[in-house]
Amino acid sequence: MPDVTMTVNMDQYILSALKEDMPNEDISTNAVLRGPKYGTADLICKQDGVICGLDVFARTFALLDPATAVQLYAKDGDQVEKGETLAKVSGDMRVILSGERTALNFLQRMSGIATYTAEVVKLLEGSRTKLLDTRKTTPNMRIFEKYAVKVGGGNNHRYNLSDGILLKDNHIGAAGGVKEAVRLAKEYASFVRKIEVEVENLDMCAEALEAGADIIMLDNMSPEDMTKAVQMIAGRAITECSGNVTKENIQRITDTGVDYVSSGALTHSAPILDVSLKNLHPVKLAF
Amino acid sequence: MPDVTMTVNMDQYILSALKEDMPNEDISTNAVLRGPKYGTADLICKQDGVICGLDVFARTFALLDPATAVQLYAKDGDQVEKGETLAKVSGDMRVILSGERTALNFLQRMSGIATYTAEVVKLLEGSRTKLLDTRKTTPNMRIFEKYAVKVGGGNNHRYNLSDGILLKDNHIGAAGGVKEAVRLAKEYASFVRKIEVEVENLDMCAEALEAGADIIMLDNMSPEDMTKAVQMIAGRAITECSGNVTKENIQRITDTGVDYVSSGALTHSAPILDVSLKNLHPVKLAF
Amino acid sequence: MPDVTMTVNMDQYILSALKEDMPNEDISTNAVLRGPKYGTADLICKQDGVICGLDVFARTFALLDPATAVQLYAKDGDQVEKGETLAKVSGDMRVILSGERTALNFLQRMSGIATYTAEVVKLLEGSRTKLLDTRKTTPNMRIFEKYAVKVGGGNNHRYNLSDGILLKDNHIGAAGGVKEAVRLAKEYASFVRKIEVEVENLDMCAEALEAGADIIMLDNMSPEDMTKAVQMIAGRAITECSGNVTKENIQRITDTGVDYVSSGALTHSAPILDVSLKNLHPVKLAF
Amino acid sequence: MPDVTMTVNMDQYILSALKEDMPNEDISTNAVLRGPKYGTADLICKQDGVICGLDVFARTFALLDPATAVQLYAKDGDQVEKGETLAKVSGDMRVILSGERTALNFLQRMSGIATYTAEVVKLLEGSRTKLLDTRKTTPNMRIFEKYAVKVGGGNNHRYNLSDGILLKDNHIGAAGGVKEAVRLAKEYASFVRKIEVEVENLDMCAEALEAGADIIMLDNMSPEDMTKAVQMIAGRAITECSGNVTKENIQRITDTGVDYVSSGALTHSAPILDVSLKNLHPVKLAF
Amino acid sequence: MPDVTMTVNMDQYILSALKEDMPNEDISTNAVLRGPKYGTADLICKQDGVICGLDVFARTFALLDPATAVQLYAKDGDQVEKGETLAKVSGDMRVILSGERTALNFLQRMSGIATYTAEVVKLLEGSRTKLLDTRKTTPNMRIFEKYAVKVGGGNNHRYNLSDGILLKDNHIGAAGGVKEAVRLAKEYASFVRKIEVEVENLDMCAEALEAGADIIMLDNMSPEDMTKAVQMIAGRAITECSGNVTKENIQRITDTGVDYVSSGALTHSAPILDVSLKNLHPVKLAF
Amino acid sequence: MPDVTMTVNMDQYILSALKEDMPNEDISTNAVLRGPKYGTADLICKQDGVICGLDVFARTFALLDPATAVQLYAKDGDQVEKGETLAKVSGDMRVILSGERTALNFLQRMSGIATYTAEVVKLLEGSRTKLLDTRKTTPNMRIFEKYAVKVGGGNNHRYNLSDGILLKDNHIGAAGGVKEAVRLAKEYASFVRKIEVEVENLDMCAEALEAGADIIMLDNMSPEDMTKAVQMIAGRAITECSGNVTKENIQRITDTGVDYVSSGALTHSAPILDVSLKNLHPVKLAF
Repeated sequence: MPDVTMTVNMDQYILSALKEDMPNEDISTNAVLRGPKYGTADLICKQDGVICGLDVFARTFALLDPATAVQLYAKDGDQVEKGETLAKVSGDMRVILSGERTALNFLQRMSGIATYTAEVVKLLEGSRTKLLDTRKTTPNMRIFEKYAVKVGGGNNHRYNLSDGILLKDNHIGAAGGVKEAVRLAKEYASFVRKIEVEVENLDMCAEALEAGADIIMLDNMSPEDMTKAVQMIAGRAITECSGNVTKENIQRITDTGVDYVSSGALTHSAPILDVSLKNLHPVKLAF
Repeated sequence: MPDVTMTVNMDQYILSALKEDMPNEDISTNAVLRGPKYGTADLICKQDGVICGLDVFARTFALLDPATAVQLYAKDGDQVEKGETLAKVSGDMRVILSGERTALNFLQRMSGIATYTAEVVKLLEGSRTKLLDTRKTTPNMRIFEKYAVKVGGGNNHRYNLSDGILLKDNHIGAAGGVKEAVRLAKEYASFVRKIEVEVENLDMCAEALEAGADIIMLDNMSPEDMTKAVQMIAGRAITECSGNVTKENIQRITDTGVDYVSSGALTHSAPILDVSLKNLHPVKLAF
Repeated sequence: MPDVTMTVNMDQYILSALKEDMPNEDISTNAVLRGPKYGTADLICKQDGVICGLDVFARTFALLDPATAVQLYAKDGDQVEKGETLAKVSGDMRVILSGERTALNFLQRMSGIATYTAEVVKLLEGSRTKLLDTRKTTPNMRIFEKYAVKVGGGNNHRYNLSDGILLKDNHIGAAGGVKEAVRLAKEYASFVRKIEVEVENLDMCAEALEAGADIIMLDNMSPEDMTKAVQMIAGRAITECSGNVTKENIQRITDTGVDYVSSGALTHSAPILDVSLKNLHPVKLAF
Repeated sequence: MPDVTMTVNMDQYILSALKEDMPNEDISTNAVLRGPKYGTADLICKQDGVICGLDVFARTFALLDPATAVQLYAKDGDQVEKGETLAKVSGDMRVILSGERTALNFLQRMSGIATYTAEVVKLLEGSRTKLLDTRKTTPNMRIFEKYAVKVGGGNNHRYNLSDGILLKDNHIGAAGGVKEAVRLAKEYASFVRKIEVEVENLDMCAEALEAGADIIMLDNMSPEDMTKAVQMIAGRAITECSGNVTKENIQRITDTGVDYVSSGALTHSAPILDVSLKNLHPVKLAF
Repeated sequence: MPDVTMTVNMDQYILSALKEDMPNEDISTNAVLRGPKYGTADLICKQDGVICGLDVFARTFALLDPATAVQLYAKDGDQVEKGETLAKVSGDMRVILSGERTALNFLQRMSGIATYTAEVVKLLEGSRTKLLDTRKTTPNMRIFEKYAVKVGGGNNHRYNLSDGILLKDNHIGAAGGVKEAVRLAKEYASFVRKIEVEVENLDMCAEALEAGADIIMLDNMSPEDMTKAVQMIAGRAITECSGNVTKENIQRITDTGVDYVSSGALTHSAPILDVSLKNLHPVKLAF
Repeated sequence: MPDVTMTVNMDQYILSALKEDMPNEDISTNAVLRGPKYGTADLICKQDGVICGLDVFARTFALLDPATAVQLYAKDGDQVEKGETLAKVSGDMRVILSGERTALNFLQRMSGIATYTAEVVKLLEGSRTKLLDTRKTTPNMRIFEKYAVKVGGGNNHRYNLSDGILLKDNHIGAAGGVKEAVRLAKEYASFVRKIEVEVENLDMCAEALEAGADIIMLDNMSPEDMTKAVQMIAGRAITECSGNVTKENIQRITDTGVDYVSSGALTHSAPILDVSLKNLHPVKLAF
């Protein structure tokens, strides 16, 4: 993760999360440690999965105290195993204790999403279809969750309402038709934007194609119709289908030849990956 | 949900989430709707579950435009069913379209937690054991997630590191023992705080009890030892056990007679409840 | 301008500008008006031009006091003339006096940009070439300045570094060539992004085309080479040239058949349009 | 520029401008540079002028990454020439690429104002009349623009509505006359404030003088009347005239003997000075 | 207090204070009042004094809930008596209970300062010497405390380091003498600033006068020397002395003929005025 | 004071206070010191008392410029004497001059509270009664003021409305009685909260005790009734009485045997402790 992104875009959320967990101070830690005491702890994986968010984990401690050192033994995207030591955190034990939960909350959630994404990506292996995320992210967590999807092997759809166009049924209705909606979008938005149109049947699909859509989302169509749509489009637009990807239906989706399949569950319903900070103990400093 | 809480504590997160989704503007909506157009849409439940976050849902639109009206047909905590209409949103269609995703992201996550919590609470029915959440919440979502746990029938543990004391192994180690840790906590923290101690065996439990702990958390103890611990404590302290509550092990936990069982999964791994905004259509205003 | 954009994206800048001009209070106004006094003033145009920012002008007063009424006699994009009354502001005279300068500073700058843009757009009339802005905007004014370019008849290029790809010489150098740079961009960025490549000669242009660039920026090329490049590209990519558009060189640019010409001067060097608040006088309220 | 001013007053605007240009991340740079790579680039002047904002330029990179080094070969206020190398920026090439535009946007605008101011100051050379700026600054840029005016050799008028009194026609009207307005201002405002009164004719001028105004602004008066006013005031108050200073009318203004002439154009209509970051290339680090 | 000042400058502090007192919610109130309940309470004065901050008191409730109505029976600056009813607050009882402490904390502190100031002002009655505050205010309370000094009949010195010049011994030392310090200040600062110099003896006083100081602060000088200094200055500069004003020494200070005496104690050591919210009771709404 | 608390909870207030005192820049200092100049100054105590806030004092300079060094010769809680040197501040003299007032404003207020608290604590010596603060703190200063109470030897009551329950007459009235209020509180709030009830007579006291209150506040009761209440409670709840603690009444309060006495005056009416920065002088740096 580039440091610039961390500095400009993530620090504000991490600091806000630390304040959420410490509106005043960490009374348990400050009660038992009345001054600085140097120590070290191990970050241990408690489940198999794909680790993600190690830089965010380290940054959480660094924001509390720049003197905290986090030595990483793994990197984002690594397949990790239960029992594996992922990192060692060294510094003032008060800092380690006070930052632990917030650091882990980020790491666990990001790793959970990366792990879940990697599982779905595996289902798509061998097909031409690639996996996409959605805007169904946890509020104020998008930058972390979209990053986790990439680390897990998925692809990012648009980031937000300002940087991508997706004309859904309501937009099309408001415009008075697919053709008019696409025309208005081309007129209104920057020419650097691709225009995506959501279609529900083959007629709409044909209309979107003719209107010059760059991406066509096939929404709630039968596998048969999706196949026909992909054939009709014939590479003149990128195709996307949305819907639940499961072991059961995956074959039917990839058989249609669609370019992308998007899944909200990657970010809204992935369980966390269990990771834990263990074995905190004081260490004598050599100097 | 009290309006004061919304105003003082939630608005900042909701507005931040709206900015996350619209760093500049909603180009799709603004392309097709060049001016205000009054319309209405229905909030439809797409899964059975416990609804939670309706006020947050409504507030999201109100922050965008106070003229948006949200008529609620359900209230937080209601058991809702697939297909049920939960609310009607009326106002400028541009506002409805631009706020939809953010409003739903809050509502879906909060309802997912309430639903999952209610399921676990059901497992505990008939026993004396009550369900607790933890600090394993999504960063910057704690106030929404802890509320959802309550709506689902669970109980809140401490809110953050500043308002509750929990002396874990690391705190005890730093203090040099259970007795000393409790003494330091009583000396340091406000007298309005209860002191909770995490113990791993019966000896520690006895020590915590003698030291005057208000709450004793039985961590990773066998059902047999937990039972003994509860009997030893005999109501002189509140008892809590942490660990995965499943249909399989629930009987063993409740049989110990422990007062509370805490579960991180309530907030970190509950899947969302699917809710959707449907049937947006323009409406003629009578006046 | 959609209200949602104002609320979510502009209010913070307007309020910050008001605080910049009033770190404590408006001592001149508060000295002479010790309480509320209802009055009205006229917004008068003092130069011919294209007006832009009327909603921002009105919002500035509304943020100070929602009871202030601004009646508009023109709308953004209108060609206005010296002496024309553009709006009437009514409310507490203290609010009008305290907000006047900030409201005008926004309006004058936005109108200056719209006016200047409209003049350049006029030079391009009759050609296929369209006018683009750049990221050379005043810090913390981008959303106002990009909007003004659109109101003046120009087109927006990418909004920021997060929502558009432009591979310049330094990016190409870092990647090891045009082909590799485009490949890396396609791999890294969301598929909703178009990929633009800046090229300096015909060889690079050919390479960019082959690599699958969506947009090719012809940088510092002679009119002859630009013409050849446009012919080589032959519609397989969008073409853009950057550089100063003047009455003298405009013919040479449009003759190349390039799709877009971008100009930083639109936002970084347009002089303001002079607009003024006049004739403030107390008014008796009927009720 | 004092570091304290940078820290307390400027950093917030610089960081906000960086976020404006990178709501998520710099996708072009991060696509081609997947990790840190040390490099260096030259800041080259592309027009003759007065350079201003070098510290802000350097700070922009430092805020992104404190490890970035900016070696300056010029200082604010220097007359620089086309082709001159002004600074060398060294550090992670990703930082240099991501911060480049924002750093230049500040530097170009500030240098444009300093250059323009210096030109007007030159016109006043040999006279007793000094040049003043106004509050007609770009919103959220005042601290940068007022500083640039000083660097260009101009003088700052009041900074904002809270730290200076200027009684204009509307204030005088509200108070019921010049005398009463001055009395109210003396009563209301801190005794450390000088009181400036705007007058439109000789009668008002006499009244302001008698009321004890510290500064009298001669507004829209003919050169003849201005001369008379200056003679009438005879050093008992500071005199200021506002209005467009051009080569043509400069002689007439200075001939009146007025102490100060103010010009809004310094900050609202100065074109930028073209400055550019060139020759970015990787460098091997010795260590 | 002008609404603009409240909106632009005070709301941020009031809202921040409310969040300080409610990081999550008011659990006592929300426990016993599970929904809105209309009620009313009386603001009762519990000590004689000068009331100040009634608008801030009312605004605190308005920020929590705009529907709260505060009917004022007194206005800032009124001499109030123990037992007097100052206002009636009506609205949702939860809002009244949750906002009570924060609203009173502002009101009590501001009234304490106004009361104390009024007492000192009384001591100065009959003399030409006026009372000044200092920058010795409580952090983040300056705007409230300086306002309270004015309400109590005192005068404000400069507001902050940016809007006033005061050359103390350290500045004079750094400049190399009074004359040089004044020269540097005149050169550096805006011409709208008056220049104040702190002097410790008659020689320095003469030097400051000659250098053109607008205000001379007589620091730690004996009454005899102060008298001589005031006579030497003879109205050519404003005179100020700093130091503790007590009943005992007041005569000696005013006898010197000094224009102003400043007192830090007004803002840093005034005890509060006791004010209380009483008699909260539910009220039936007629409609 | 733990660094984490400083970083997460205090820095925002300190930086805000610095901005309050320098909305633009320190014109006096910047006028006379046009560049960095290394110097040192002494922090001198000017009154006997308990020093508190030395870390906040040092942090204020560190936030302005991390290169400033503050060498402490005392620590929070020390009894200090008039004339004692408490610390030496070394760094850029501009930083020392610009930060001086803000740093001292924090230090003086915190030390004033610690000193006053220590005096009251002394009065309670020999009794079982301990001293408590209240929520009657200065807005936006609570974290500093509550810390100062602890440093002075007092005890903190609840921190805010979110982390403690105190059922006052209004809450009890709203609930319909003591018993019901306690029941609602137990049901609503986290089980980690102790429940405090304010009672006005012996009947209410008995009711609170029976309802299971953890803490009973005896409000406005006569010494005789307080004694009876303490005897009735007999250790089954913690007892608190509120009210003015003076030398005169202290014996009567402690004679009742009450556990805690709370005093708002500690934070709302303690005068400051006078501390001053002296002897600033340039120092040659050895390197």
